[in-house]
Amino acid sequence: MIDIKSPVLLVNKKIASQNIDRMLEKANRSDVIFRPHFKTHQSAEIGELFRRKGVDKITVSSVTMAQFFAGKGWNDITIAFPLNILELETINTLASQIKLNVLVESAFVAEKLARIANTELGIFIKIDTGYHRTGLLPSQTIEIESIINVLEHSSLLHFKGFLTHAGHTYHARSKQEIIQIKASALADLQQLKERYKSRFPDLILSYGDTPSCSQTDDCNGFDEIRPGNFVYFDVMQYHLGSCSLADIAVAVACPVVAMHPEREEAVIYGGAVHLSKEFIAADNGFRLYGYIVKINTDEKWGTPLTGAYVSSLSQEHGIVKLPKTELKSLEPGDLLGVLPVHSCLANNLLKGTQFYI
Amino acid sequence: MIDIKSPVLLVNKKIASQNIDRMLEKANRSDVIFRPHFKTHQSAEIGELFRRKGVDKITVSSVTMAQFFAGKGWNDITIAFPLNILELETINTLASQIKLNVLVESAFVAEKLARIANTELGIFIKIDTGYHRTGLLPSQTIEIESIINVLEHSSLLHFKGFLTHAGHTYHARSKQEIIQIKASALADLQQLKERYKSRFPDLILSYGDTPSCSQTDDCNGFDEIRPGNFVYFDVMQYHLGSCSLADIAVAVACPVVAMHPEREEAVIYGGAVHLSKEFIAADNGFRLYGYIVKINTDEKWGTPLTGAYVSSLSQEHGIVKLPKTELKSLEPGDLLGVLPVHSCLANNLLKGTQFYI
Repeated sequence: MIDIKSPVLLVNKKIASQNIDRMLEKANRSDVIFRPHFKTHQSAEIGELFRRKGVDKITVSSVTMAQFFAGKGWNDITIAFPLNILELETINTLASQIKLNVLVESAFVAEKLARIANTELGIFIKIDTGYHRTGLLPSQTIEIESIINVLEHSSLLHFKGFLTHAGHTYHARSKQEIIQIKASALADLQQLKERYKSRFPDLILSYGDTPSCSQTDDCNGFDEIRPGNFVYFDVMQYHLGSCSLADIAVAVACPVVAMHPEREEAVIYGGAVHLSKEFIAADNGFRLYGYIVKINTDEKWGTPLTGAYVSSLSQEHGIVKLPKTELKSLEPGDLLGVLPVHSCLANNLLKGTQFYI
Repeated sequence: MIDIKSPVLLVNKKIASQNIDRMLEKANRSDVIFRPHFKTHQSAEIGELFRRKGVDKITVSSVTMAQFFAGKGWNDITIAFPLNILELETINTLASQIKLNVLVESAFVAEKLARIANTELGIFIKIDTGYHRTGLLPSQTIEIESIINVLEHSSLLHFKGFLTHAGHTYHARSKQEIIQIKASALADLQQLKERYKSRFPDLILSYGDTPSCSQTDDCNGFDEIRPGNFVYFDVMQYHLGSCSLADIAVAVACPVVAMHPEREEAVIYGGAVHLSKEFIAADNGFRLYGYIVKINTDEKWGTPLTGAYVSSLSQEHGIVKLPKTELKSLEPGDLLGVLPVHSCLANNLLKGTQFYI
């Protein structure tokens, strides 16, 4: 029994391992490179879990994270974030130590990079397949060609392929819509591959996002997948249909500090600085910041308590709605577990407090 | 010129100092103890700014924060969070070193505390004056009396008074409503004082929250005020009417990493892990995660750019809506400043990256 006195992130490694196995099996079956995104866990220990299963290529979302994992022996890393030219010095240093890929989405940045790069770098061109956050539209052929021209004239910058993140799957209303988004992204990327494969026979089509990669049967047609969240999953993914509740590998253990049976609430030490303010909304202003589970003596947890959820968060406080029957068996000093709405953000806030069980 | 390469929190000490002066003057004029909440800044340096102005009593929201500030020489601290009995050992240690006050809202917790406390502790009873997050209603006289009985039978626990946080001012629709909430809280607390002042002639009525303390002319009637956010303010407080835009003392400096003029957007390195997912909502799904300012060469900033705001956040990305005229003068590698919606949460995420200017 761990001596928990304040909010900590419990990570069930058995569940995480099963989640990895399932995605790895799908990647292998689809004959694609598996380059999982490590921004969800940011953990050397979970990294080892992947490594022991044969994974040796990873994705991260910042230069700092790339430095961290390079320090843990990972030597093939893609930074899946539009290249920040202010960090070119650090990128140069890192790229002299490991195989590093970065993302470019304009000739302007490609040219800056070509002037400053002093070591070999892999370059993916970021393509916008409908999410409209970053990247070039497949139809922006002139800009794409300009970037490729810059890369072809550089002896250090190597064009690796086209990368997309279909983040609009997070707004999909059905599995059918997710399947459709993935099919459309594949068509976009394959069209680009057709155009460039004679010049770049090894070019890679790299695809991300947990909803797509979890909810469809295979990843055929792509060359690489980069899902991340699937290792832990969360309530958001459950709502999207990407996982079952039993697949959620993390819970935030929170001390109960006060009871308000008259409004069927308990107050926990566990707020926005532990869980993040990510929520799931419903009608009439209803917000859900997490499901509630009981923490067993072995730090494992069961299925969420029916009718129980985190209804609001302050900086350090969480308000938990609990049926009266559950409230009766609870008192200040007990622990409740919160299945977070967004495991990436909760994990980022609770870095340094993880307990791997 | 600071060499900024990734998101950092710029703290304008001159503005913060003015904000402190204004609140301190109001506290002095109202003849109340000024015990500012340090959860907003969590900063030894901003703490010094308060100390140089004569402040020697502070509020924090966690035991960890109390330990931090005790280590910086603060020796009169109230932890304004329902006492977490799992942390009693640490609280005992801390209370043996400094004057420490904690919050209790049930006889159950008071009894646990009375059994375990081995050093003197100040106790405030938390009163719910309408926010309905924590605390006892003023009408729960039996529970209040039970707590006081426990304290009277302890030689170490000293009843200090009644404390409330009128957090419902954050949902107020007008200054008039905020004035009304404060008046109602004062009436509630004074009624309790009337009942107990003969037994406890020194009992303190402690009141919090930045909207109330900023937007009303004085704090007469209370004995102590604990606002916190006012030191930095933020876009939320501006929207509530607590401050002008020029009073906001913090901006998050973020590198521009991509441009999308076709949809009047720039992409910044600055996401949910830097700004938090706190937003201001309007009709039709509109969300605002921060206003945009230009960062000058001295790291100061001007008024927000008209029509510019952060419209969405991913883990590391921010999407900035910018008028075409502003986009024209911008390129990747430039910095934009974001006035955060909630400075407490942004500051918590950016601890360790502050630049005091």
